[in-house]
Amino acid sequence: MKTEYPPSEVDHMRLALREAARGQPTAAPNPPVGCVLVRGGEVVGSGFHVRAGEPHAEVLALRAAGEQARGATAYVTLEPCAHTGRTPPCADALIAAGVARVVVAALDPDPRVAGQGVARLRAAGVDVTVGVLEDEATRQQAGFRMRVTAGRPWVAYKYAMTLDGRVAAQGEGRGAVTSAPAWARVMAWRAEADAVAVGSGTVLADDPRLTVRGPEDGAAGGHDPRPVVFDRSGRVPPTARALRPGSVLITAPGTDARPYEERGVTVLRVGSLPGALRALGDLGLNTLLLEGGPTLATAFFAAGLVDEVRALVAPKVLGAGLPPLALAPRPMAQAHELSDLQIEVLGPDLLVSGLVRPVPRLAAAGGM
Amino acid sequence: MKTEYPPSEVDHMRLALREAARGQPTAAPNPPVGCVLVRGGEVVGSGFHVRAGEPHAEVLALRAAGEQARGATAYVTLEPCAHTGRTPPCADALIAAGVARVVVAALDPDPRVAGQGVARLRAAGVDVTVGVLEDEATRQQAGFRMRVTAGRPWVAYKYAMTLDGRVAAQGEGRGAVTSAPAWARVMAWRAEADAVAVGSGTVLADDPRLTVRGPEDGAAGGHDPRPVVFDRSGRVPPTARALRPGSVLITAPGTDARPYEERGVTVLRVGSLPGALRALGDLGLNTLLLEGGPTLATAFFAAGLVDEVRALVAPKVLGAGLPPLALAPRPMAQAHELSDLQIEVLGPDLLVSGLVRPVPRLAAAGGM
Repeated sequence: MKTEYPPSEVDHMRLALREAARGQPTAAPNPPVGCVLVRGGEVVGSGFHVRAGEPHAEVLALRAAGEQARGATAYVTLEPCAHTGRTPPCADALIAAGVARVVVAALDPDPRVAGQGVARLRAAGVDVTVGVLEDEATRQQAGFRMRVTAGRPWVAYKYAMTLDGRVAAQGEGRGAVTSAPAWARVMAWRAEADAVAVGSGTVLADDPRLTVRGPEDGAAGGHDPRPVVFDRSGRVPPTARALRPGSVLITAPGTDARPYEERGVTVLRVGSLPGALRALGDLGLNTLLLEGGPTLATAFFAAGLVDEVRALVAPKVLGAGLPPLALAPRPMAQAHELSDLQIEVLGPDLLVSGLVRPVPRLAAAGGM
Repeated sequence: MKTEYPPSEVDHMRLALREAARGQPTAAPNPPVGCVLVRGGEVVGSGFHVRAGEPHAEVLALRAAGEQARGATAYVTLEPCAHTGRTPPCADALIAAGVARVVVAALDPDPRVAGQGVARLRAAGVDVTVGVLEDEATRQQAGFRMRVTAGRPWVAYKYAMTLDGRVAAQGEGRGAVTSAPAWARVMAWRAEADAVAVGSGTVLADDPRLTVRGPEDGAAGGHDPRPVVFDRSGRVPPTARALRPGSVLITAPGTDARPYEERGVTVLRVGSLPGALRALGDLGLNTLLLEGGPTLATAFFAAGLVDEVRALVAPKVLGAGLPPLALAPRPMAQAHELSDLQIEVLGPDLLVSGLVRPVPRLAAAGGM
């Protein structure tokens, strides 16, 4: 079967990024990576990394291409690895298959790779280009990049607010602010997140399941993120719907863990929010979708632990209720400017998302 | 000179609306109205109403067309008048000029017209169509429509907030929240508004001029709106920059008006916000751009006196400060849904505007 002909290098890399996205829900603690092999302008193989312990994207693409890999160009969203982990180095596999050229979107910040994959390829005579669609790739790999450089997951704070900045009425649960298309987008975020965090207030008010559901409540999705419940004082009952085998409870050192552990919940007893986030990193979680109410989000933000903001804005005015964040007073000039802004219309609502801090990246050495 | 050929009725009416917009800054207490005369598919005349006492749009278009008006179709954004005000009825002028057909965007809610213009044209054998681009026309005429039906100006609340819903830092003046393109839009709104309202808090904190200025502060604009300062207790000094000849001060019945009146300020001493709005309607003001801080806006909203919301949203997060409105607590289900939503990107910022209530309109009788 003839694959469609992508007219340019950027298009080939875009294909590789699309491949990588397929592994997003399951790749952690590894990064999502996609690879496309092109020979004579034709895609001869592609692959993406599904989960840790299984083959890397490059290996799957090489397998698909077979003999056609010889002399081909490989488009990889992340620098091929140079170390033996659970699988042998991909740089060696590309060299062995006779690939003539490798186009890399972004270098791997993992200290075990960090430019050595590219160096190994070049030493073997392979032509290497770095930086095609680098921004898109680093953003896709934000979770992995944060974990390997800072030891914690990438945190995206999602909130739905009215046009006058209210995420909930005072004393109310987190009633629907936005519409069905916005809800569907939240489900898509959950499906690609490694974990979803809420505070005890949200659990006690709404008892959410935090699963991926279709428009009809209860319809099963593909991948459910791990629920992470922040509950310093052990207020949340072990029977809460978010607490099930695989869930994580973050609580204070003094809390009795047994009632939760008996239900298969991982209990992390930590003294601080940064400590909690490092513990989540140690669990291999790359991305955390922060769906908690303003109290939890404010604690995250105050600790410098929100990396990205995803604001769903509903075209209505409430005039009272809770704001998305309640930090200590500061002048307007000290507001956090968001970068890499994305704006989208979702039915009647708006989605405005942006980065609070840049995704960690490894600067390419001169000549790359 | 040959005018460009508009391919359809809608395009002719759009031209008429564009004409009408040219009169927006100065037409009050009259509505902005535009008229385009078309014969044989060619525009043979056009006009717009500049100010009260001067000719109506239809008369200017007829003058421009001269003999070519005979047998032409007139596109008028508002029903031609049937009564003698400061000028004779436009319906009669169209009939006398031999216009064959009149296409009207929207009927005139002024009780002196209210369908009688159309009736008079039809009685004279003129073919009349009503409703082409009616929504656009009624929105353009919102101020006039509110004043002639409710006796008060149409109120648009403009605010600039961060993505977490803060219009100002606590205790700070109204420092720049949004960017230069958003500021330019506010200037355009001022240029077409009859009046701009602020509260005493804004005047005391920022001492704004409330004029139309270019990017270089101080550059003169075309039309300045009348500043309206709401100051119940007479806190604002008569030397405030917003108080100049033509400005309006709304204050309590007990306030000493003389220091303000000596500067040419119109002082309205009223006991309630609805009373103040009616007094502004009596001054012939059709549109009021509410630029006040959250205290004044909350009072307007609580009294049901905000008709439109124009929210400029900056992609930054402050985490503290004042929300755009602070009403009494109410459940999320009772939020005011906005209609006729418009979303626009202004540089790095977003503009989300919508109507709190529909523009008053006169339903066309059957067959129109």
